[in-house]
Amino acid sequence: MDGSPTPGGQTVSAIGEFGLIREVTAGRAQPSTTLLGPGDDAAVVAAPDGRVVVTTDTLVQGVHFRLDWSSPGNVGRKAVAVNLADICAMGAVATSVVVGLACPPETPLSVVTELFDGIAAEAERARVGVVGGDMVSGKEIVISITALGDLGGRPPVTRSGARPGDVLALCGRLGWAAAGLAVLGRGFRSPVGVVNAQRYPEPPYAAGPQAAIAGATSMIDVSDGLLADLGHLARASGVGFDVRTELLTVAPKLVDVGTALGADPLHWVLTGGEDHALAATFPSTVDLPQGWTRIGATLMPESGVTVDGAPYERETGWEHWR
Amino acid sequence: MDGSPTPGGQTVSAIGEFGLIREVTAGRAQPSTTLLGPGDDAAVVAAPDGRVVVTTDTLVQGVHFRLDWSSPGNVGRKAVAVNLADICAMGAVATSVVVGLACPPETPLSVVTELFDGIAAEAERARVGVVGGDMVSGKEIVISITALGDLGGRPPVTRSGARPGDVLALCGRLGWAAAGLAVLGRGFRSPVGVVNAQRYPEPPYAAGPQAAIAGATSMIDVSDGLLADLGHLARASGVGFDVRTELLTVAPKLVDVGTALGADPLHWVLTGGEDHALAATFPSTVDLPQGWTRIGATLMPESGVTVDGAPYERETGWEHWR
Repeated sequence: MDGSPTPGGQTVSAIGEFGLIREVTAGRAQPSTTLLGPGDDAAVVAAPDGRVVVTTDTLVQGVHFRLDWSSPGNVGRKAVAVNLADICAMGAVATSVVVGLACPPETPLSVVTELFDGIAAEAERARVGVVGGDMVSGKEIVISITALGDLGGRPPVTRSGARPGDVLALCGRLGWAAAGLAVLGRGFRSPVGVVNAQRYPEPPYAAGPQAAIAGATSMIDVSDGLLADLGHLARASGVGFDVRTELLTVAPKLVDVGTALGADPLHWVLTGGEDHALAATFPSTVDLPQGWTRIGATLMPESGVTVDGAPYERETGWEHWR
Repeated sequence: MDGSPTPGGQTVSAIGEFGLIREVTAGRAQPSTTLLGPGDDAAVVAAPDGRVVVTTDTLVQGVHFRLDWSSPGNVGRKAVAVNLADICAMGAVATSVVVGLACPPETPLSVVTELFDGIAAEAERARVGVVGGDMVSGKEIVISITALGDLGGRPPVTRSGARPGDVLALCGRLGWAAAGLAVLGRGFRSPVGVVNAQRYPEPPYAAGPQAAIAGATSMIDVSDGLLADLGHLARASGVGFDVRTELLTVAPKLVDVGTALGADPLHWVLTGGEDHALAATFPSTVDLPQGWTRIGATLMPESGVTVDGAPYERETGWEHWR
């Protein structure tokens, strides 16, 4: 499944833009926050808080996903999940997404319908409406999703509120997608646990609002890698962080994969992106919400981001065009 | 200016993703609706109505724009304008946009900065915040913009509310972008009025909320061509329309260009897309708001969409992959 035409299979050019829109929107349920769904110039979504949280992420074939590694359904799930993770990292509850899709005319219809099945599945899992979109022709598959969310009356939890003395905590898993990438890159398709983690993340959506309610002072979703994203938090807040490796979970599965591939699983945990765990800081007086665990401490800015008190010497994150 | 590297010019790969983000966000003002702007996992935008209007449009190089015909700044303006037109076609006031951009590593930095200058200029013209975005690598330039808007307590004006007997009315110009496309396609660069109309539309943003306040029963922005978009209104509302050509404005400039190129300017007015005028229906008892003019009548569905009482025999609109 590489997005090339299948003999006898229908392509998007055969069905056309409007046929394709009908194909991917028919029969989809909407949550109660969707006041006016797809089919008009724009959609209308409930924003009971009187403010709306908005974020956008674009996924490009060959850069963010490969259709020989992931099914179109996996890619659809991933495209939604990476956006919803950003919404919940503000402490908000996601309400809706819109989907911009560019794809070549020879794209098999099944690729697009399965992509939207994945989008719908992940949206449903998070009780989020797929409320609109745009489908256009292009040389490669580019999926651009924008997600909206509601703050429920709370202030947004930004990257800039961490204070020295705060507890550094994590919810969700790290290193799995990186381990999956290493496996896939060597031509393997198993173990399925890490491979699936690379295909699509499973961010802990509810943990964002829970952290906000508990009093989190700053929060970010780990998309570029723990140390890279803590660097973003550190710069925005004007603090430093020390991550304690004895507080990190290195799952036995990652140890197995690391042993098999001759790789260091702790490096995946510290630097692997795309798992979309949440990292947050809490005042030291707070009881961490369920699912959150302490992984280190918030320090003065001059400390930088350290691991067990020392700088981390290896490559720490991903940057486009670099 | 075709997006290829200029000798000695800096490229996006040289400055990197984070440098590029700094480059295009630095020093941009935000309207009061932007409660939290770019730089965090997500932005926060005022939604005083308690509902938010959302729409998305994706523009692809070579499909929606050509950098040998339009400057990057024009493309940025166009990418924003086509989205804001959808927001105002719901009767809403646009508040913000987010921008997803994919581009090749060898894209000159100036192309991206000028693109964002255009985005910012059009947003400022409409008092809309550019509140966030995502920049990634891809094989071609793809700009995916999502716009948000506020209904100010009014019901959205959908495509489905037209009733037989309603007045069919228009605000904004038609045929200009099509005339510009014909000029550019023949290798000319003037007259500049029609050429610029092809480069970026100037939708009448305020006319959408004004129509809603006046009691418009249905509304759409003319992106695919008047007859094609009236077809969308007709199907959604279960009505027919008759457009009266004696009520349409065929600007002297379009007549001139038509004469020069041996083309029918009325065809451009009836079928040319990309001008993003607004078409709406009003109860016959309503005084049309300023800037709106009657162009025809709303009929029973079996009439279809006709011109001076007869079916229009030529090609009426654009569809992707067709």
